[in-house]
Formats: sequence, structure tokens, C-alpha cells
Amino acid sequence: MIVAVCLNPAIDVTYLVDSLRPGTSHTVTAVHRRAGGKAINTARVLAQLGEQVTLCGFAGGPHGARLRADLVGTDVQDALTPIDGETRQSVTVVDDTDATVLNEPGPTVTAQDWTALLDTVTARLQGCAVIVMSGSVPPGAPADAYAQLVRLARKQEIPAVVDATGRQLRHALAAGPAIVAPNREELADTLGAPAATRQQLIEATAELSRRTGAAAVVSAGWDGLVAVAAGQRWTARPPRLVAGNPTGAGDALTAALARGLARGVSWPERLADAVALAAAAVSAPVAGHVDLAVYRAMLAETVVEELH
Amino acid sequence: MIVAVCLNPAIDVTYLVDSLRPGTSHTVTAVHRRAGGKAINTARVLAQLGEQVTLCGFAGGPHGARLRADLVGTDVQDALTPIDGETRQSVTVVDDTDATVLNEPGPTVTAQDWTALLDTVTARLQGCAVIVMSGSVPPGAPADAYAQLVRLARKQEIPAVVDATGRQLRHALAAGPAIVAPNREELADTLGAPAATRQQLIEATAELSRRTGAAAVVSAGWDGLVAVAAGQRWTARPPRLVAGNPTGAGDALTAALARGLARGVSWPERLADAVALAAAAVSAPVAGHVDLAVYRAMLAETVVEELH
Repeated sequence: MIVAVCLNPAIDVTYLVDSLRPGTSHTVTAVHRRAGGKAINTARVLAQLGEQVTLCGFAGGPHGARLRADLVGTDVQDALTPIDGETRQSVTVVDDTDATVLNEPGPTVTAQDWTALLDTVTARLQGCAVIVMSGSVPPGAPADAYAQLVRLARKQEIPAVVDATGRQLRHALAAGPAIVAPNREELADTLGAPAATRQQLIEATAELSRRTGAAAVVSAGWDGLVAVAAGQRWTARPPRLVAGNPTGAGDALTAALARGLARGVSWPERLADAVALAAAAVSAPVAGHVDLAVYRAMLAETVVEELH
Repeated sequence: MIVAVCLNPAIDVTYLVDSLRPGTSHTVTAVHRRAGGKAINTARVLAQLGEQVTLCGFAGGPHGARLRADLVGTDVQDALTPIDGETRQSVTVVDDTDATVLNEPGPTVTAQDWTALLDTVTARLQGCAVIVMSGSVPPGAPADAYAQLVRLARKQEIPAVVDATGRQLRHALAAGPAIVAPNREELADTLGAPAATRQQLIEATAELSRRTGAAAVVSAGWDGLVAVAAGQRWTARPPRLVAGNPTGAGDALTAALARGLARGVSWPERLADAVALAAAAVSAPVAGHVDLAVYRAMLAETVVEELH
């Protein structure tokens, strides 16, 4: 069993328009609505792969009700904490050339909401193999929200996978996560060191791992990913580029890391899985879903190299 | 009692952003949600003026539930017809320079939904003085939806005020409405004649009234409005410009026309009321609300002239 924590889930709304022109009125030609948020995408991918996964986080208001309804019929088990505030909506406007994203900040959670969430996570961690947490944190949540969750898991000797940003990431790093998966910009910001070239990226990933004791995995985009664990360094790259929708690729990568950790497979296997799942997410039209045929094909051909 | 028909209401969502740039991601700094749609704005203004008003139309899904909840506590009586489809959302993105609007098309209504609506309107028309209908029509509704409603009202000798566009307007014109209030572009399109200059606008308004037998009222924007009823022609203009939010000004104008018709006041009085209410709507920060102080001040100074 894997617990996925999505503190600030969203109803992801996609609007297709002919051409987005600021200052004008548009008729939306197609509308899609779906429960979203990074850890929800991760949870969905885990469920699609047959993992038992429980979703914790906050849900409230009409959007919260819609979110929960959207999870019914999936294999993601709903352990969301009800709140008075309203779950946010995220609108992506897609036209011929661009995707333009409008992210609501999310509901303000109260101290009581936070305590209720900690209680739920504590209960759900019983018998769980891994906890994975990712995405933004709603207004009102503690600045060290992810750090608190990492510590809660450590008390039960459950390893944590964290994909976070800014202050939440910095606090979480100090709490002892098993794996962190920041993006390239976050890595550079966190260390105050460049990660632009391939060599810089490898050095920075190693430095992050060395400083924190956590394994660090950072996506290098189309070039695959870089990983450092207990001093060992790897790169993993897909055999070819995959065309599609990159939204959710990082969440599929996180799913692979959580799953590999839960199953105790070797690092090279985890990394091949991560690259193949990310490519399979790009191939699927919506975030939180992977193309299993692409996954299997890519898995057989992904190249993992240990660096010495 | 006035019946207002809003066939395609919406949850109007307003997002404030720093600057809307297509192809980028934005953090929304403030979110406002409110029941919207032209006839809902008109109904709210009527209720604010102390008129008894009943709202008919379609509502469904989580957005429909939110819409109905938003009407609780107003003096607008909810007679919305529940449907399986979901009420649309309309998103307006406001930055420092522009307002950018994204209109969902709305739910597809079924023949059964339409019949249920006609039954409700028929029942609510009992003892009603005027029916007012405006705004877009959802997919699946008949092409002559407004015309059917106008005829339904005429059977009970109840006059109809119609603010519609395109094919719906053309069908409605043939059904014998008491007053039509198209915008300037619709007027020109309907007649296939120009309405760009003031004189063209007056002639076109007169021609529309002559052809259809309905009184015709057309806004000339900041220059006030032009009206023709039973061969008489008027212009009405505000004493000064009002700064503010023009959304909903046309719906306040429609409210004045419906109210004047219900009360049987003279055309010059109705037109002064329409100009003053439109200005009072511009002064109010949200559509569907008027600034009563501005309304009273403007009413005393609005100039109505009969043209000979």
C-alpha cells in the first residue's frame, strides 16, 4: 500500500479555443474537467499499474465534491479530509499554438483542518510501504507541512518520496525523506548552484544527496534523468523522443520512484521504470494516465548508466 | 410579478492576474464566483428595485447547485428546471489592461428538458404581468426557443421583452414580442442595413419596429438609447458619462423596459428609467447590481427627446 498526499488538489479544467486573444471574448469549443493535482496524477498512475494506493489531502465545497466523484470508479482509495474551504480550480486554455494556465491559489486551510489531516495520514500509514507527497500547499498550511509528514512517516519507519518546491522543499529536506525529486530549477535554487549543463546537473544532484542523505532524482527533460543514491550516480534515458502532452510526466516519474521503493527493486530498475513511465505519460492524452504499450516498449530499451 | 427566463445561465468566475500572457502559467491573485447570465442579471436588478420576480431556465450539475445556492437570500424566486446536463461556467480573466472572456457553450438540453421548462413557464405565467427573456440558448434547445416562449405568453395575453441574437432573435421577432432590445450589431445584421451613424441607428430601429410591430429599443452606448414604439421615436441620453464596469448595463436596461411595461408607465418614463438604471449598473462593481444613489441622481437629469 502506498499513501499519496495531495494537499492542494484541483479540478483541472481544459478549454479549447480557436485562438486566445487577450482583451476579447471567446467561445470555448470543448471543455474537459478532471480531478488534478500532482499527487493525484501520481496516485492514478500507481492505481493503473495495479498498486494499492490511498489518497490523502483536503477537499471541500462543490469542487471538492466533484473531485471525490471523479475518483469513484478508479482504484484510488479516497481518504481526503473534508474542509469548509473550497477546492481550487485550475484552468488551462489550449489553442492552436499554446497552453495558458490559470491556477487558483486554493482554499485557506485552518489549524483544525491540518490536525485532521495529520490524524488521517497517521491512521492510513499503518501497514503502508511508502508515502509520496507532491505539489503545491494551500494557503494556511504550515510552512513545514511536508517536513511534518516526512517525520510522521519516519516515526512509523515508512520512507517518504517528496516532490516539492521552495520553502516546503527546504524544510522537507531537513526532515529526512528517502527520495527527493525536485525539478532542475528547484535544484539550482535550493543549492544556489548552477544546474544548466549536464555535468552541472549531475554535480548538483550529487551535492543535494550528499547534504541531505536522501536519494535525489532530477529530470533532465528529453535527456532522461539523473539520480544519486548513497554516493552512486546514474543517468537513465529513453531510447527515443515521444510526442505528446508533457503534463503529468513528472508525476509518473514520482509514481515509479514510490513503486520501486515499495517493492524494493534496485536503483537501475527504478530509474528505467521512471523513464519509461514518464514517456508513457507523455503518450497518454491526459495527465494521470499512462499508455501501457508505450511503457512496456520503452522499458525494454531504456538505457541506465552508472557514472564513475 | 415578472417572469425572467435565463435558458443558459452560468457561474461567472472572475480571475485577477497580474498580466495575461498566452502560453504561460499564471497564479490567480483573486477569485470571484457568482450566478450570472443576462436574464439573471436582469432578475437581480428587478428584485433590487422591489419587483416580484421569478426566474425560469435550466440548472444542473455542481455548477447548477452553486447557481441555485447563490440565489438563496436574494429576492429572486427560483423556478429553475433541473437537468442532467451541467450548467456552464464563464471565466473572465482581468489584468491591468484587459478583460478576457472564456464562455463555455453550456449543457445540451434534451427535448424532455425543454418540455419541462415550457410547463414551468406556463405555470409561472399565471398572474404575471410581463415575461422577459435574454441571453444565449444552450445546445439542444429549439432554434425558435424564444419564439415558443413569446407565443406561450401571448396565449395568456402577457407581453414579452426579448434581448436575443441571430436565429433566435429572427424567430422571436415573428412571434409577436411587445419589446425587442437587440444590440446595435444585431440590429444591423437582422435588417441587413447599417446602424453605424446616429441617423442610421434611428432609421434601423424604426424599420425593425415597423416590420415586426414590436417596440424596439437599441442602446447607442454612451450616447444613450434610441426607441421606436407605434411609430413614435425617441432618444434618451444620460446627463454625463459614468465610469465603471459596463458588463450588465444592457441587462439593467432590459430590467427597466420590463418594469415599465409591467407598471404601464409612459414610454418617455421607461426610457429615462432605462438610461438611469444602465448608468447605475455601470457604477456598481458587479453585473446584476445597480447603485441606487446613481440611479436616482441620473433619473432626475436624463434627457428624453421625441423625434419628429
